[in-house]
Amino acid sequence: MSCVEATPARSRNAAATRAAILKAACGRFSREGYDGASLRDLASDAGVDPALICRYFGSKEDLFAEALKNCASPPDLFGGDPKSFPERVAQMLVVEPKPEGKLEHLLMVLRSAASTKAAEIIRRNNRETFYGPLEEWLGAPDAAVRARAVAGIIMGFAVARAIDDDAMLQDGERQQLCRKVADLLRTAIG
Amino acid sequence: MSCVEATPARSRNAAATRAAILKAACGRFSREGYDGASLRDLASDAGVDPALICRYFGSKEDLFAEALKNCASPPDLFGGDPKSFPERVAQMLVVEPKPEGKLEHLLMVLRSAASTKAAEIIRRNNRETFYGPLEEWLGAPDAAVRARAVAGIIMGFAVARAIDDDAMLQDGERQQLCRKVADLLRTAIG
Repeated sequence: MSCVEATPARSRNAAATRAAILKAACGRFSREGYDGASLRDLASDAGVDPALICRYFGSKEDLFAEALKNCASPPDLFGGDPKSFPERVAQMLVVEPKPEGKLEHLLMVLRSAASTKAAEIIRRNNRETFYGPLEEWLGAPDAAVRARAVAGIIMGFAVARAIDDDAMLQDGERQQLCRKVADLLRTAIG
Repeated sequence: MSCVEATPARSRNAAATRAAILKAACGRFSREGYDGASLRDLASDAGVDPALICRYFGSKEDLFAEALKNCASPPDLFGGDPKSFPERVAQMLVVEPKPEGKLEHLLMVLRSAASTKAAEIIRRNNRETFYGPLEEWLGAPDAAVRARAVAGIIMGFAVARAIDDDAMLQDGERQQLCRKVADLLRTAIG
């Protein structure tokens, strides 16, 4: 009997319910923002009782924080060889297939940024999952400024690609842009 | 009698109706995307009869194109002295107060990018209002690649700022970031 089959039905159902709630949360928060999305509508999207959301996730704030983490699934940007960082990230941003789900995460963040409560959760999440590790990896001097510069580049090319990928560049131009983005990342880090 | 008072009531009403429809369109398209937004709901937001939308704007495509233009109001980026471009744009992105309405334009574009009809209108609008003038201004060689690099930087720092402006940088760091963004723009253009 495999490990998967050995999982009790109760846990399997719990995992499925949790996943359904998180999926519904990403959808509602990205469409209506933190303040606009109601737990009742979200529960209806997920096909569960609203009380279950509280049992699984606690408050609306906690659910939003969890949905942010769940919906982002960032690639392991700061894990590889630091020297290869500019080429590796440029390749990811310009040449590799677009990652799934990125756009929904961005919409959720943009749509909710005007909410005071959500903004604090977004900042904490950004610090923990992105700026913190990046600043540590970059080190002194001026880690905060250089991290912000790297973040702006990653954000910008991810968004530009989401908006009109493939609409403008020939194959040769895509390779040129990839080299240019690597230059930009070197300038940002340096 | 001033020029404003001399405007016939009919034109004043027409202008107000047009503006109300465009405002409602920016709101609906940015929340629900091109495919999701119905002209009926949009008319209800604007407090007008749905037939008026067709009379004023033609089709849904035409309204979307007009809303994109109306909701963007980009600053005159490529009008000044080319030499001062990196410093001028960095200042705008990092130091000057955030422009109003930018976020709604971005949400409208991101939310609608998955729609085939909307994507074509977005690309045409980007070409006409942004990439076209920018490529002409940059000139040969590789104008398309360099324009794309400039666009990625502008987009990225605008979005990063919309998400967590002021959350991370001290005053001195903001000036440092401004110089860094100017360096990035020079790298993008060069």
